Amino acid sequence: MHFVLLINGIACLFMGVLLALDALFFPATWRVFLTAGGLTCFVGTALTLVAWDAKGRLKRNHTFLLTATMWLTGAGIGALPLWLWAMTPTDAFFEAMSGITTTGSTVLTGLDEKPHGILWWRAILQWIGGVGFIVTGMALLPILRTGGMQLFRTESSERGEKELYSATSVAAATLWVYVGLTTLCLLVYLVGGMSPFDAVTHAMTTLSTGGYSTHDASFGHFDSAFLQWAGTFFMFCGALPFVWYIRAANRGIFRSEQVRAFAIGLTIVILLLTFWRMVVHGAMPLPALREVAFNVVSVVTTTGFATVDYTLWGPAAQVTFFFLTAIGGCTGSTAGGVKIMRWIILTRGIGASAQQLLHPSGIFPIRYEGRTVERDVINGVVAFFTFFALTVFGLAVALGLIGLDPVTAITGALTAVTNVGPGLGPIIGPAGNFAPLPDLAKWLLSFGMYAGRLEMLTVFVLLTRLFWEEGAA
Amino acid sequence: MHFVLLINGIACLFMGVLLALDALFFPATWRVFLTAGGLTCFVGTALTLVAWDAKGRLKRNHTFLLTATMWLTGAGIGALPLWLWAMTPTDAFFEAMSGITTTGSTVLTGLDEKPHGILWWRAILQWIGGVGFIVTGMALLPILRTGGMQLFRTESSERGEKELYSATSVAAATLWVYVGLTTLCLLVYLVGGMSPFDAVTHAMTTLSTGGYSTHDASFGHFDSAFLQWAGTFFMFCGALPFVWYIRAANRGIFRSEQVRAFAIGLTIVILLLTFWRMVVHGAMPLPALREVAFNVVSVVTTTGFATVDYTLWGPAAQVTFFFLTAIGGCTGSTAGGVKIMRWIILTRGIGASAQQLLHPSGIFPIRYEGRTVERDVINGVVAFFTFFALTVFGLAVALGLIGLDPVTAITGALTAVTNVGPGLGPIIGPAGNFAPLPDLAKWLLSFGMYAGRLEMLTVFVLLTRLFWEEGAA
Repeated sequence: MHFVLLINGIACLFMGVLLALDALFFPATWRVFLTAGGLTCFVGTALTLVAWDAKGRLKRNHTFLLTATMWLTGAGIGALPLWLWAMTPTDAFFEAMSGITTTGSTVLTGLDEKPHGILWWRAILQWIGGVGFIVTGMALLPILRTGGMQLFRTESSERGEKELYSATSVAAATLWVYVGLTTLCLLVYLVGGMSPFDAVTHAMTTLSTGGYSTHDASFGHFDSAFLQWAGTFFMFCGALPFVWYIRAANRGIFRSEQVRAFAIGLTIVILLLTFWRMVVHGAMPLPALREVAFNVVSVVTTTGFATVDYTLWGPAAQVTFFFLTAIGGCTGSTAGGVKIMRWIILTRGIGASAQQLLHPSGIFPIRYEGRTVERDVINGVVAFFTFFALTVFGLAVALGLIGLDPVTAITGALTAVTNVGPGLGPIIGPAGNFAPLPDLAKWLLSFGMYAGRLEMLTVFVLLTRLFWEEGAA
Repeated sequence: MHFVLLINGIACLFMGVLLALDALFFPATWRVFLTAGGLTCFVGTALTLVAWDAKGRLKRNHTFLLTATMWLTGAGIGALPLWLWAMTPTDAFFEAMSGITTTGSTVLTGLDEKPHGILWWRAILQWIGGVGFIVTGMALLPILRTGGMQLFRTESSERGEKELYSATSVAAATLWVYVGLTTLCLLVYLVGGMSPFDAVTHAMTTLSTGGYSTHDASFGHFDSAFLQWAGTFFMFCGALPFVWYIRAANRGIFRSEQVRAFAIGLTIVILLLTFWRMVVHGAMPLPALREVAFNVVSVVTTTGFATVDYTLWGPAAQVTFFFLTAIGGCTGSTAGGVKIMRWIILTRGIGASAQQLLHPSGIFPIRYEGRTVERDVINGVVAFFTFFALTVFGLAVALGLIGLDPVTAITGALTAVTNVGPGLGPIIGPAGNFAPLPDLAKWLLSFGMYAGRLEMLTVFVLLTRLFWEEGAA
C-alpha cells in the first residue's frame, strides 16, 4: 500500500505547486489559491513522508487502487479552491470531477465575468486530467489487454525497434507530444484572434478533449470560421492514440486501423448530417459543414465544446448526437466513451459469428491491426461494454428516482459516463447548464464521470472480494 | 431452394384454411376472409405443387432463408384480410407484422366496436406467431448455439433420457404444452368473468406474449384483481422456456438457472417499484403490487398488455420501463428481447474479466446451467448484443430523420426490435397508439419487429456474401 500513498502524496505536492502558481499569476484570487495550495502541500508532504520507504515493485492489484485513488485525490484537490472561492461543496466537487475527468459539464454560469484564476484552474484541471489519463492508460491498458501500450507493444515487436521504446521513453515522448500539440494549438488560436488567456485555456481544454470554456457561449463565442476549423482539427488530434504520433514521427505516416476507421467514420457522419442540413433546413454548404463538423467532432472526441445549440436541428440530429455520445475516440488518447477499437472488435464479432453459423466447424478469428485478437482481449471488450451499459442504466434509473425527466436522466447518465459533457433536453443540453440539478444528482453524475474515466473495469475490480483478499496479503 | 418454397406453400395452405374458418365463424366479415382465404390457398397450392419434388436434406443456409421467408409470408397473408377489410396497405402490413412477431403494437383505435372476425384474426396471428417462434427456435437455436433445443440437448445428455426426446417428440410435446397452457388460461379467464370471445382471444395473446387486446383500454378493461393476477401469471408462463415444462413434467420441479434468475429478478424489480409507489405516491400495498406486477411482467415478457398508463408514475418509472423493455424473457419461449440467458452470460463475463485482470495467467471460464460456456456460444451472444444495439440505433436515427421526436424514435425502435409493443411518450406510450405515425415510420418499425423476431443474426446472415455464394451452389 505504501506505493499508493507515496504516489498520491507526490501528486498532492504537484497540484499544490500548481495552486500556488495560480495564486502568483492571478492576484485577484490569491487568498483562495494560496490557502488551497498550502493545505494541499501539507497533506502531500505528510503522505510522502509516511510512505517514503516504499520498497519492492508495485503489486498488480495496487495498480488499480492507485488509479482509483489518484482521480479521487485530483477531484478533491481540484474542488478545494472552487469551494474556498464561492461554490457549495457539491458544486465544487462536481466541477472539479468534471474537470479532472475531462468531461466538461459545468455548473457555473456567467463564465465571462468569473475571475481568471478560477477559469485558469478549470482549464489546468482538464489538462492534467488529460495527460493523467494517457499515462494511466500506459500503466493500466496493458493489464486490461486493450489498446494504448498494449497496442504499441504488438506493433513495435519488429526487429530493431524494441530498444527504441522502453516504457519510460514512451511516457516521456507522449508527454512531449501532448505539450507540443497544446503549444501548436495555442499558437494557432492566437493567430486566429483569441486573447492570450483564451488561447491558453482553450488550447489546454481542446487537447485534453475536456471542453471547459471561459465563455458561456462556449466556442460559439469566437465567431470565426478559422478558429472553429482549428478547434475541430485539434479536438480530433486529442482523440488520436498518442503512440500513433510517436510511430508516425519515426516512420512517416503510420497506418493504424483504429485511426483510419475513426477518420472515415467521422467524415461519413459529418457529410451526411451536412447534406441533411442543406436539404431539410436550406443551410449554406460551407457554414453547415463547419458547424456540423465542429459539433460532431466535439461530441465524438468527448470534448463537449459547442458552437450552436444543435438540438434545435430537429429530432434526427438529437437522436444522432445521443448515439454519437457513446462512440468515443481512440484508445490511448485523452478521449472517453466506448472507443473506436472496441467498436471495431464488437462489429467484427458479428461477422465472425455469421460465418460461424454457416460453417460451424470453421474457425473465424477476429483480426485487428493485422493480428488475431486474443480471447482475453475480446472478453475484456465485452465486459467493458456490458458494464458500461449497466452503469448508464443504473445511473439513469437513479437520476429518474430523484425526479429528473427521462431525457435529462438518460442523456445525463450517458454523457457523464462517456466523459462527453453536454446531454440533451432543455436543462443539460449544449445550451444548458448542470447547475439546476439537485445536489444528489450532481453526486451521482460525479460518480458516473469517475467510473467512466476509470474505464469501468477498474471500479469493478475494486468491488470484487478477490481484490481485497489479495490486497490484504 | 425447393424445400423453402414447399414449406412456405404448406404454411400458406394452413393460413388459408384459418382464413376460411374465420369466414365460417364470423359471418359479418365473411366476404373479406373468404376472398383472402381463397387467394392464400391458391398461392399455397401453386407453391406446394411447384416444389413438391423437393429432395435431400434441408441445407444449413436454407434454414435461415426458410425462417426469414416464413415470417414475411406470415405477415403478408396476415395483412391480406385487414387490407381487404378497411385498412391502408401500410397499416395492414404493420398490424399483421406486429401480430405475427407477437409484438402487439397496434394502429387500430376503437377496438371495442371492431368486427369480431378482425379481432379474432389479430389474436390468431399472435398465437401462431408464438408457436412459430418456438418451433423456429428448435430448428435455429441449435445452429445459433444458444438456448432452446441446444440448452435442452446438453441437459438431457444423461443416461437413459436420450431416446425419450427425439426432435419430433420434443416439437410435439412443446405444441401440446402451448395448447394446454392456452386452454388453461382460457378457462381461468372464463372463471374470472371474461366473455367467451374475450377469454379465447386474450388467452391466445397472453401465452404468445403478444399483447393484442379486443379493447382500447387493453387489459385495464377488465377491472378485476383476479383477472389481472391471472394475466400476470400466464404472461410469465409464456416467457418460460417451453422445454422446461417438459422436463418439469417428467422429473418434477426442474432447476434451471435461467428460470430462477428470471423469477428472482422480476420479483426484486416488482417489490422495489411497489415499495417506491407506496412511499412516493402513497399507493395502497395490494393494488400497487398488482398494478406493478402486471405491467412489469407485461413489459419484461414482451407481451405489452397494460392496465394503467404507467408513464404517469413519474420519471423513475419511465426510465425503469425503458430499460425493462430490453431485458426479454427466457430463450425457447415466445418472448423477445435480449433474453435472460444472454444477460446471464454477459454479466458473468464481467466477473470473469475482473478475475482475469488480477490473475492474468489464470483461466476463468464462464459457467451457465452447470456447464462451461463454449467460445462460439459467447461469440454468438456478443454478436447478438452488438447487432441488437446497432439495429436499435440505426432504426432510431431513421425514425428521427422522418421527424419523430427523440423519445418516440428511440423507444419506438427499442419496443419494435424487442417485440414488446408500447413505447414511451404521448404518442406510442401504453395509453397511445401507433396510428398517427407516418407511413414510412410504420414500414421501418415493421422491419424492426421482423429483425427482432429473427433474432437479428438471421437477418445478418442473409446479408453476407458468403450466404449467397453457398446458396447458389
